[in-house]
Amino acid sequence: MYAPSIENLIEQFEQLPGIGRKSAERISFYILDRMSRESVKNMTEAIVNAKHSIKFCSVCRNLTDSDTCAICSSQKRDRSVICVVEGPKDVSAIEKTGEYHGLYHVLHGALSPADGISPDDIHIKELLARLDNSVNEIIMATNPTVNGTATAVYIARLIEPLGISVTRIAHGIPVGGDLEYADEITLLKAIEGRHPML
Amino acid sequence: MYAPSIENLIEQFEQLPGIGRKSAERISFYILDRMSRESVKNMTEAIVNAKHSIKFCSVCRNLTDSDTCAICSSQKRDRSVICVVEGPKDVSAIEKTGEYHGLYHVLHGALSPADGISPDDIHIKELLARLDNSVNEIIMATNPTVNGTATAVYIARLIEPLGISVTRIAHGIPVGGDLEYADEITLLKAIEGRHPML
Repeated sequence: MYAPSIENLIEQFEQLPGIGRKSAERISFYILDRMSRESVKNMTEAIVNAKHSIKFCSVCRNLTDSDTCAICSSQKRDRSVICVVEGPKDVSAIEKTGEYHGLYHVLHGALSPADGISPDDIHIKELLARLDNSVNEIIMATNPTVNGTATAVYIARLIEPLGISVTRIAHGIPVGGDLEYADEITLLKAIEGRHPML
Repeated sequence: MYAPSIENLIEQFEQLPGIGRKSAERISFYILDRMSRESVKNMTEAIVNAKHSIKFCSVCRNLTDSDTCAICSSQKRDRSVICVVEGPKDVSAIEKTGEYHGLYHVLHGALSPADGISPDDIHIKELLARLDNSVNEIIMATNPTVNGTATAVYIARLIEPLGISVTRIAHGIPVGGDLEYADEITLLKAIEGRHPML
């Protein structure tokens, strides 16, 4: 029913998270009918440029446009604490509290036997390689879901024997919810209320 | 806090309809973290191609990739009826009922004195230019909002003196709602229940 180029555009937007068919149609028609050619050019260039310039930080695996991310290279961060999260958006959620001054480690996923995601598929080895005398505490801030909790326990069991304290952020984040949708205060309380895992 | 190219990407998505800051962040991280470079290339090419190839149909002003849209050039459509809508997405909403076989006219907006949108700013002249002996009925399917209704009344007053019947789609679409979000059955009932406007 649509011209092929419109149908293709709608399908492209439909694959994005949280975008259904109607939203994809609305966005597509907005781009075709309301946006200037220049605005559309700016948008596609922003996508291409970001995808091209963004890579993983060589230390924490967060997204960055340089070899080492701004947090890992900052002299103001407390290098004795590493907060382990599932994804880059969790880093930004915690940064918004403004109260956490340690480092991060981004796993890019959580263990999930059902989906065939094993320890080798997420960046656990890279976390272990970072652990030296300067690290006193690992805060497990994976999502409070079955997979997120299993991942936290798995990593805690690996690290505890090394004599490094492993804590879990407090409940306060709704169980089963996504870290990225928690408000700043809830996240802050969750970090303050952290407790030893084992 | 974000790398500049990520912040720029988020801002680009934030300007789209129905996309707030959190959705824009979620989409941006999905593109950077989860999509392959090839998928991203397909997406940006789809945007560029659609924007480049899509123009207004020379007859009804709907979006098309040729001079005259598929509906206007079809020999199967009833050329005695023209359904007037505010935007291209309204055409697709009505087409989904599968029960309307006439032509369309896309105004690309509605009269809105508050926003300075006057009759010259929407495609009313182009509608009047289409009216000849072959046209028996104009169905006003602008949104049931203050501006949409005012636009319908304004156009009805211009056309009625020409001896062409002007009808309004029935209430059945929630008042104050957007045509594009109505389900097919509601839209079908609205078209069946249309009544003379003046």
